Amino acid sequence: MFALAMIDYARYDRVRAVVFRDDRLRLLDQRRLPFEEVFIDCEDADAVAQAIADLAVRGAPAIGIAAAWAVVLAAGALGEVSAAQARVSLVPVLDRLNAARPTAVNLAWALARMRGVLAEAGDDWRARVRAEAESIEREDLAANRRMGAQGAALIAPGSGVLTHCNTGSLATAGFGTALGVIRAGVALGRIARVFATETRPWMQGARLTVWELQQDGIDATLIADSAAAHLMGTGQVQWVIVGADRITAQGDVANKIGTLQLAIAARHFGVKFMVVAPWSTVDMATRSGADIPIEERDPAELLTSGGRRTVAEGVRALNPVFDVTPAALIDAIVTERGVLRAPFDAALRAAAASA
Amino acid sequence: MFALAMIDYARYDRVRAVVFRDDRLRLLDQRRLPFEEVFIDCEDADAVAQAIADLAVRGAPAIGIAAAWAVVLAAGALGEVSAAQARVSLVPVLDRLNAARPTAVNLAWALARMRGVLAEAGDDWRARVRAEAESIEREDLAANRRMGAQGAALIAPGSGVLTHCNTGSLATAGFGTALGVIRAGVALGRIARVFATETRPWMQGARLTVWELQQDGIDATLIADSAAAHLMGTGQVQWVIVGADRITAQGDVANKIGTLQLAIAARHFGVKFMVVAPWSTVDMATRSGADIPIEERDPAELLTSGGRRTVAEGVRALNPVFDVTPAALIDAIVTERGVLRAPFDAALRAAAASA
Repeated sequence: MFALAMIDYARYDRVRAVVFRDDRLRLLDQRRLPFEEVFIDCEDADAVAQAIADLAVRGAPAIGIAAAWAVVLAAGALGEVSAAQARVSLVPVLDRLNAARPTAVNLAWALARMRGVLAEAGDDWRARVRAEAESIEREDLAANRRMGAQGAALIAPGSGVLTHCNTGSLATAGFGTALGVIRAGVALGRIARVFATETRPWMQGARLTVWELQQDGIDATLIADSAAAHLMGTGQVQWVIVGADRITAQGDVANKIGTLQLAIAARHFGVKFMVVAPWSTVDMATRSGADIPIEERDPAELLTSGGRRTVAEGVRALNPVFDVTPAALIDAIVTERGVLRAPFDAALRAAAASA
Repeated sequence: MFALAMIDYARYDRVRAVVFRDDRLRLLDQRRLPFEEVFIDCEDADAVAQAIADLAVRGAPAIGIAAAWAVVLAAGALGEVSAAQARVSLVPVLDRLNAARPTAVNLAWALARMRGVLAEAGDDWRARVRAEAESIEREDLAANRRMGAQGAALIAPGSGVLTHCNTGSLATAGFGTALGVIRAGVALGRIARVFATETRPWMQGARLTVWELQQDGIDATLIADSAAAHLMGTGQVQWVIVGADRITAQGDVANKIGTLQLAIAARHFGVKFMVVAPWSTVDMATRSGADIPIEERDPAELLTSGGRRTVAEGVRALNPVFDVTPAALIDAIVTERGVLRAPFDAALRAAAASA
C-alpha cells in the first residue's frame, strides 16, 4: 500500500457531515444538498435521533458516529449523577437512538461500544463516554485513510473508475470508503477519470457524490445508472469501486441497488470490481448472500422525480433498496485489515482471526 | 405464431397517439403524459414538423407516420395544381419535415415513400399521396400485430417479462413493437407478470409505458433502471423484450441507453432476450454495431429530475442516448418477416432476400 503521508488530506478531504464542537453536534443536512449547505444544530440526543430517522444524516458509518455523539449529549444533560445512575438513565436514550434506523448495522455497533464503556466505567464515566465517541470517529477516519491507500495501490496509473451511490466524507467520519480509494487514487496520480452514477431513486450520486468531489477539486462525470455498461464498453473504466452495507463470510456483498448489475457488466467487459468497507461491515455469522433479507422501501419513492410525481395514479412499483453481489464477481475487498482476494471465505476467516 | 384473430385488439390496444381525421392531424402530446391527455391539432405541415422537433410525438414509427400525414396536409393546402406543380411546391415541405429529427431512420424512410409516390403520380396525385400515408400507417399497425403474435409464441405460459423505454401504441401506429409482443402475450395468457424500467433520463417507462398498459387494463410494475439485475436474480423474469433503433447486418442492435446492460444481466441469469422491430429498422448496409455512431444528447438532461435541477452547478455529465447490444447476447429478433435466430447474419440475409 501507499504511505498515508503521501496524501494531502487538507486538500483531498474538505467535507465534514458530522461535527461535534462546543458541546453541540452539527449535522450537515444531506436532504438539502447540493444547493444549500445547512447544518442542523443538535443540542440533545432526541434531535440526533430525529435527524437519523429523517435521513438528514445518512451513510452507515456517519449514522453510527452521530449516535455515539448523541450519547455524549445525553450524558451532558444528566447533571451530577453516579455511573450507576447514568447507566439506568441512558437506557431509554440508547434504545431510542438504536430504533432510529433499525437496519443500519453500524448504528447498533456504535451504540454497543458506548454501552460497553458505560458498563465498565466508574466515576470517570462522563470522560470515558466522550473518549469512546471520539475513538469511534477517529478510528473510522483512520480506517478510511488506510483503505484509501491500500485500494489506490491496486489501480494502475491513468485508470478510469466508476462509483455508485455516495460512500464519501458525507457517509463517514471523513475521506470515505469507496470514495476514499478514489480520493487517494486521484491524489496519488493513479486515477485519471472519475465517473459517478446518478443512483435512483434517491440520487445520492447526482446530489451528493459529484458535489462532494467538487469540494475537493476532483473532476467527476455523472452518468445515468443505465449508461454504465455502455461506458465500460468504451474502455474508459478500469475499476468499478463501491462500498458495502454487509459482507458475508463467503464474501457476498449487500450494497445499494444497482451494484449487482455494475458487477455483472464489469465482469462482461473485463473491468475490475473493488468493494471497500470497514471491518465492522463484515458479518461472519451470515454465510451467503442468499441469507440476507433485501429491504424493500416505499414504492412511492419511484413514483416521483425531483420531488414531483411523474407516474400515473394506480401504478405499482417495486423498490428494493439493496442487492447482493456474489463473491465470484468481486476482484478485491478492501478493509482496514488489508486487501482480500479470492477465495474470499478463507481470506475473510484469516482477517477475522487477525484482530 | 398465433393467429392474429386470437387477440381482442379492441380491448388490448386502446391508445392512439397519431390520429388523422377531418383533414387534421391530431397528436397526443407525450410531454404532458401521464397527467394530461391533450391532443395537438395540426392543420398544416409546419405544425407537425414543430411537434416532431419538440418531442410532442416520439417513437421512430410514430414520427414517420406523422410526417406522412403532414405531407397530406401540405397537399391539401396547395389548391388546384398539377402533379408537376405539386412536386415542386412540396420539396421545401418534405425537406423541413426531414430535418425535424435528423437521426430518426423511419422519418426519412416514410418521407422517401411519400416522395416516391409523388414522383410517379399523375392527375390523381392528391389521392395517391393520401393513400400512401394511409398505407404507411396501416402497414405499421399490421406489422406490429404480426410481430406480437410471433413474439408471444416464443414465451412459455406463466412467464414474467421486463421491458425498457416505450415501444407501444404511443411510439407506433398502434399496438407497439416490444410492447405489442407483451400485449399479445398477456392477451394470450402467456405473460403473467410485466415489469417496466423507469428509463432515465426521459422516464419513458415511468411516464408512458406503465400509463399506456394501464389504459388496456394490463397490470405492470415499475422498477428503477438499476434494479433490473436484482429482479432477474429473483426468477420473476423469463424474457427481456425491447425495441430497436437500428439492427445491423450481423444482428447487433442499437437501442435506448440501458438496453446493453439488461442484455448482459439477462445472459448472466439465463433470462432470454428478445428484440422486436419492423423490418424498416434493419440496416443491411451497416455490418457491425461498432460502425453505429452513438448519439450523445445535452448533458443538461441528467442535471434535472422531474423538471428540477438536482445536481450542483459546474458538474459534468455524459449522456449517450443509445447503446449497442451485440448479436451474441440476443436470443431472438422478431420482425414482420418472421422470428430470426442465431446465426443472425445468415438469418437477416435470408429475410432480406425474402422481400
